[in-house]
Amino acid sequence: MAHDDTLRIISLGGIGHIGKNMTALEQNGEILIIDCGIMFPDEEQPGIDVILPDMTYIYENYERVLGVLLTHGHEDHIGALPYLLERMPLKVWGTRLTLGLVQAKFEEFDIEEGSEFTEIEQHEQLEIGSFKIEPIRVNHSIPDAVGFAIETNQGILLHSGDFKIDQTPTEGLPTDIHAFARYGAGEVIALMVDVTNATEPGYSGSERVVEESLRRIIEEAPGRVILTTFASNIGRMQSAVDASVDMGRKVAIIGRSMEQNVRVASKLDRFEIPDGVRVDVREIDDIPDRRLTILITGSQGEPLSALSRIARGSHRDISVHKQDTVIMSASAIPGNEALIWKTINGLARQGAHVLHGEGEVHVSGHAKSEEIKLLMNLSRPRYAIPFHGEYRHLLGFSDIAQDLGMREEDVFILEPGGVVEFTDGRARRAESVPGGSLNVDGLGVGDVGDVVLDDRRNLAQQGIVLPVVAVRRDSCEMVAEPEIYSRGFVYVQESEELLESIRQEAKQTALDLQNRGIDDPEQLYEQLRSRIGGYVERLTGRRPLILPVIIPVDGNCSTEK
Amino acid sequence: MAHDDTLRIISLGGIGHIGKNMTALEQNGEILIIDCGIMFPDEEQPGIDVILPDMTYIYENYERVLGVLLTHGHEDHIGALPYLLERMPLKVWGTRLTLGLVQAKFEEFDIEEGSEFTEIEQHEQLEIGSFKIEPIRVNHSIPDAVGFAIETNQGILLHSGDFKIDQTPTEGLPTDIHAFARYGAGEVIALMVDVTNATEPGYSGSERVVEESLRRIIEEAPGRVILTTFASNIGRMQSAVDASVDMGRKVAIIGRSMEQNVRVASKLDRFEIPDGVRVDVREIDDIPDRRLTILITGSQGEPLSALSRIARGSHRDISVHKQDTVIMSASAIPGNEALIWKTINGLARQGAHVLHGEGEVHVSGHAKSEEIKLLMNLSRPRYAIPFHGEYRHLLGFSDIAQDLGMREEDVFILEPGGVVEFTDGRARRAESVPGGSLNVDGLGVGDVGDVVLDDRRNLAQQGIVLPVVAVRRDSCEMVAEPEIYSRGFVYVQESEELLESIRQEAKQTALDLQNRGIDDPEQLYEQLRSRIGGYVERLTGRRPLILPVIIPVDGNCSTEK
Repeated sequence: MAHDDTLRIISLGGIGHIGKNMTALEQNGEILIIDCGIMFPDEEQPGIDVILPDMTYIYENYERVLGVLLTHGHEDHIGALPYLLERMPLKVWGTRLTLGLVQAKFEEFDIEEGSEFTEIEQHEQLEIGSFKIEPIRVNHSIPDAVGFAIETNQGILLHSGDFKIDQTPTEGLPTDIHAFARYGAGEVIALMVDVTNATEPGYSGSERVVEESLRRIIEEAPGRVILTTFASNIGRMQSAVDASVDMGRKVAIIGRSMEQNVRVASKLDRFEIPDGVRVDVREIDDIPDRRLTILITGSQGEPLSALSRIARGSHRDISVHKQDTVIMSASAIPGNEALIWKTINGLARQGAHVLHGEGEVHVSGHAKSEEIKLLMNLSRPRYAIPFHGEYRHLLGFSDIAQDLGMREEDVFILEPGGVVEFTDGRARRAESVPGGSLNVDGLGVGDVGDVVLDDRRNLAQQGIVLPVVAVRRDSCEMVAEPEIYSRGFVYVQESEELLESIRQEAKQTALDLQNRGIDDPEQLYEQLRSRIGGYVERLTGRRPLILPVIIPVDGNCSTEK
Repeated sequence: MAHDDTLRIISLGGIGHIGKNMTALEQNGEILIIDCGIMFPDEEQPGIDVILPDMTYIYENYERVLGVLLTHGHEDHIGALPYLLERMPLKVWGTRLTLGLVQAKFEEFDIEEGSEFTEIEQHEQLEIGSFKIEPIRVNHSIPDAVGFAIETNQGILLHSGDFKIDQTPTEGLPTDIHAFARYGAGEVIALMVDVTNATEPGYSGSERVVEESLRRIIEEAPGRVILTTFASNIGRMQSAVDASVDMGRKVAIIGRSMEQNVRVASKLDRFEIPDGVRVDVREIDDIPDRRLTILITGSQGEPLSALSRIARGSHRDISVHKQDTVIMSASAIPGNEALIWKTINGLARQGAHVLHGEGEVHVSGHAKSEEIKLLMNLSRPRYAIPFHGEYRHLLGFSDIAQDLGMREEDVFILEPGGVVEFTDGRARRAESVPGGSLNVDGLGVGDVGDVVLDDRRNLAQQGIVLPVVAVRRDSCEMVAEPEIYSRGFVYVQESEELLESIRQEAKQTALDLQNRGIDDPEQLYEQLRSRIGGYVERLTGRRPLILPVIIPVDGNCSTEK
């Protein structure tokens, strides 16, 4: 537990982009959580749905937890909240849209009674336990995003939230640079800062530029406009809707997550589509191409998304028309590039004109290096804690901080579970808390680990071959011909000869043991595994997983046909 | 068969980058093949090693095939040659390094006797059947690359090969723009042109720039320099070696493909490393860090490569030293981005300074749009056939060609198997030939198709569950308790309860059939599959592959323990 005059900042969760998902502040025996988000699996984690931060430290100190303060409504900041609240009720503070998106998730989860949700607004002065908090408006790729100024027993801690500094945003006002300046004029013990784009030079570009491009593109488009963006990018969708309305276009919205976010945002006055404009997917063929805009999910080329299906020509309701203009209004999350190009190629091949890429039809929601420098210079923190970056971004930020005159050792890069402790205005690394992550697969949390994932990767590479042998329990003597099952190995109907020869090898393996008088099923299992494995590799050059199935039988029986 | 006064250009192979792997020219009943390369699998083709062009058309017309003319020694242009020559001997023409790399492959393959290899040089006048051919020097990311001027019965056909136009290359002379100009001054019926970078503005940048950067970086590096590039980028490696020698550094070369290419190129005077400079990996710890450069494979973040192992801290011989400079002297092939970032993050986390990206430490080997325009204006072809591009690049080229005054219909985008036919100086699309592709997995060619790949993808997602039931053959009556095997589903040791309940469900399924008097094993199989599948999904939210194993037994026996 922290001493009364100590502040601890604890980073939880975060593979890939470190420290973005969940942070805990601790002072006077109280714990305040900032954000509670999920991570997404990469190509080495097949079948995993989402990944949760390891919340052991929270569970173990539940009685000291004040609640959860949210910066904005993206999944990597709110997605793990239902898993936490399922286990223990807590107070939750967030802005209007953020809470709306949180509550929409509860339709999918059984949440314990007892959690309390409090809407917060910028400029408000919150008191949560011994923390005094002012939410600060920031620009990001979702409305109602905030950072925080938090008065702690070690002074003011600033938290940027996920931010950019857009001087001409399309919804609301610019990031509240006055607030950061006001706190920076005093003493700021530390700034926690979003460094996603720390290695990108210059500024992120204004949403206004995209709005104007979209308007021009939609105006000039000779046929339908099909626009995809992140389903949470409400502002981007609003720009497309506004331009479409002005051009006399109807708008269809396709894709579960987009439809849900539009529903939530509309209810909370964060999205507006005039009466009579929105049409159902079943009506779109009745509308002239030049009078239709389609907002659709699939900006990352996700194979199951509506846009990918259209690109493959396998969507039930929508196919490409010759003069379609497709706008990919998003950039690639690393790892998705090939899928996105595949989508673009498929659409182009069918005759669509595809626009994509940062600059014209997309700007990032995260500050680039000049914006980060501006925030640093406004805030003038004694220490800096970068978050939301891969290791290379965190190092890139460290270089920036040093360019601004900060010492390298005053930048704290916190790996998952990492703790920085402030005492008497001085920061130092403290002992880590559990900080790994838990895989969620279906309804299971944490039951799919490295062993299972190794098996999945191996299965994917070469499939599985199962020699099935029924033997007498007492003697390990075969009571029948072995059988060979396989999946993902060869096309069974065209490989009968190969499978038959593997069957013979399995039979010979069992006979050899029998002849040597060995009656131990474990030895038979091991022999089958290694001999069939070797045999298959010699014959095919492949190494499928070999899983012998041995059925011990009693009595006087046989499985001969 | 083509008429005497007809020329046919046939595109074979090419998923992703269309038309680069293999082309056939046909006139006067003769077929001349240009290149014979492999493709590489994407994330939807797990376990596939390489992909071959469908060569059915070549096999069926073998007696008319004159041979194979090679542009350069990259795998996507020569990699399928052993598979072709394994089946039928042919004449092969290529430049010195290209043939050297081809012949190095034969150590891995059994090639039929009877193939003949002829070394060609720029400016040479070749006569192959009724084709007259002049190889034209082009710059590319491997030495000894050429394009061709081919005199056909329809006039001059120009083929760019994989090219860029480097005014200051580091090895040899610039692309022979005079040759293209000379042919362009006359009549050129068509230009086949590499459009990999057609959507990139400007010029590709000179290898000289990279050479100078590498020299500066190697000079200033405070510790070891670890450089990775494509194993075939002999010129890049030469630049690194030259600079290292001048700074008094020893050089180690690590990675099978790099070692092999260096061996081949050295023997053919295309690579030089002075005596006493090269050191073995086992010696590197005896050399001061500032006196060592390591050339290493892994520029695409390949998980099994030497560099990835170092990044993960799992390489047997090499770990990161604090002042290491790592140079990623390559750009990402789409789909590899996440792996490359993972490598960079791993190296940076251990304290290495990592340089990467196009411009300073890498330039592309393929012409960008201004170079393509230059080649088009030099060549002045009547028709253009773009190759080596995804669909978006082919369309990008079409836009370029139209900017240069060409008509859209004079650009022929050939999908695999596509044919363009020239008669009386006019081109038109003709009926396609078989043009798909064949998956190579281990020693098998073409035996892993969609069904097997579907299974592999499904296995990777959720694993496999096998209910194993032994039943009396005549009655389908269970003779023992069922057993449940699984792989890639759950961690077995921690899921005993779950697996036991699945076992009970399997037992109940069999009992239910028994009670209904059903004695058909097929029905038992189907029932187990659907009921266990549904049960597992309800319990876990997962949908593993369910593969029931039913062992029919005769006689009076049981498998009870």
